[in-house]
Amino acid sequence: MGGSLARALRHSGFVGEIVGYGRNLENLQLAVDLGVIDHAEARIEAAVRDADLVLIAAPVGAMAEVFSQLAGRVSRDAVITDVGSVKTSVIRAAREALSQEEFTRFVPGHPIAGTEQSGVSASREDLFQEHQIILTPEPDTRRDAVDRVRELWEAAGGVVHFLDAEKHDAVLAASSHVPHVLAYALVDMLVRRDDHHDIFDFAAGGFRDFTRIAGSDPAMWRDICVANREPLMALLESFRQDLGDIMRAIEMGDAQWLMDTFQRARHARENYVKPAPSDSPDSPE
Amino acid sequence: MGGSLARALRHSGFVGEIVGYGRNLENLQLAVDLGVIDHAEARIEAAVRDADLVLIAAPVGAMAEVFSQLAGRVSRDAVITDVGSVKTSVIRAAREALSQEEFTRFVPGHPIAGTEQSGVSASREDLFQEHQIILTPEPDTRRDAVDRVRELWEAAGGVVHFLDAEKHDAVLAASSHVPHVLAYALVDMLVRRDDHHDIFDFAAGGFRDFTRIAGSDPAMWRDICVANREPLMALLESFRQDLGDIMRAIEMGDAQWLMDTFQRARHARENYVKPAPSDSPDSPE
Repeated sequence: MGGSLARALRHSGFVGEIVGYGRNLENLQLAVDLGVIDHAEARIEAAVRDADLVLIAAPVGAMAEVFSQLAGRVSRDAVITDVGSVKTSVIRAAREALSQEEFTRFVPGHPIAGTEQSGVSASREDLFQEHQIILTPEPDTRRDAVDRVRELWEAAGGVVHFLDAEKHDAVLAASSHVPHVLAYALVDMLVRRDDHHDIFDFAAGGFRDFTRIAGSDPAMWRDICVANREPLMALLESFRQDLGDIMRAIEMGDAQWLMDTFQRARHARENYVKPAPSDSPDSPE
Repeated sequence: MGGSLARALRHSGFVGEIVGYGRNLENLQLAVDLGVIDHAEARIEAAVRDADLVLIAAPVGAMAEVFSQLAGRVSRDAVITDVGSVKTSVIRAAREALSQEEFTRFVPGHPIAGTEQSGVSASREDLFQEHQIILTPEPDTRRDAVDRVRELWEAAGGVVHFLDAEKHDAVLAASSHVPHVLAYALVDMLVRRDDHHDIFDFAAGGFRDFTRIAGSDPAMWRDICVANREPLMALLESFRQDLGDIMRAIEMGDAQWLMDTFQRARHARENYVKPAPSDSPDSPE
């Protein structure tokens, strides 16, 4: 994610020098070798001391630690932003770790884009092209910081939307987190069966999509599940009940009820799903 | 499905004259106009009287009626086959409606291929290229009939496998029918929410896949659910339990348990999922 944004911003001319910091040193060195970043720093202080803009592309569960490392060390002019898939927990962590003045320069963000692959070798400068970027500034977020981050994402080709952080988390729980949990649950259930070789050998379209979704980064999704527990659990409870209703209809052979339900779902696709942006692969987030 | 096979067989030179019969007269006329079939018949008797091979491409729930229409009317030399997604119920219907002699010429089949679109306008001669075709002959199915149907699918570009019908239904319940039920259930649940516009507006990759799966033909999937009830219900019960385990882990914030589960699922994808055939879209069946 960080690599793709670096490539996109370099391509657009939005940035001057790009400095990288991260725990995966091999990945950082590769980013330098590929020219994705200008140089890497081994310590976060050195990376952020003179920054105009700090982008945090870390798993949601690591954000609290990153904020506490940034606090008091980040340049006084820097705008800070992130790409975390959950926003209320990240905002809470930022409020706790940063000074109030630093917090006003933090613009919470979430690009609805990504691939199952991670690491700089999977980065692409067109990853955000025509993709939706959600920013969830707080009432005390500085207006000029928000503008700066909006310009950044527009330079990367994204389409910026603003949402309340709680609303973001509820919507994304439905449109992204629940599907991932269901895909992980199904693939894990099937791989534990004795006949899993046959099942995977004859994987058709529907299941292939599930396995692709379940190929997403486990650590990232563990963090999302923990961080967005409340809206996620409410939806999963509701899903389990609805699935129970469908199972009762199957058990009773209630063909009309099944037909009505499946038609409503198909109708939803036809009426509410916007076409995917260009040819780029859709997001696992 | 019928249209795509007609195109593929014409292209390969496997067939001479192709006669179509179906209840959607507009679709039949279009098939003639497009040159997909040579001509259409308004009555099934006329269509099958002189046939060498009869392909039944009807929803699983309509198969019993089709078999009873065929019985006693199909050419004495004709091999009969089908493309239904469930095999035991289709075989049962064939045994009930056909004479024992006719039944020995019936080769149950299921091509693991398709698109969400139906109708002849969506037909493609390369639909089966490199796709898996499962045949589930019975102990009393004639060997020469099986050979003929295998040749047909190989001419259409498919890769033919043989499975016991019960095994087929259990495997496909897992790899295809359960994913479709989950996708229908989720999309239907979300469209009934007040905030469904936001959810669909910010549909990311995972959910987009679900909506695509839920865009499949409702009548076809209603029939599959009813016809394959037993293995489907067993798997859905098991899924509901496993989902309950994941929900408990989310509720308790058991990050390690979630990580293990998600990693097992990702590992399954990496190790067991074969690459999709060429560039063709995967199957919704």
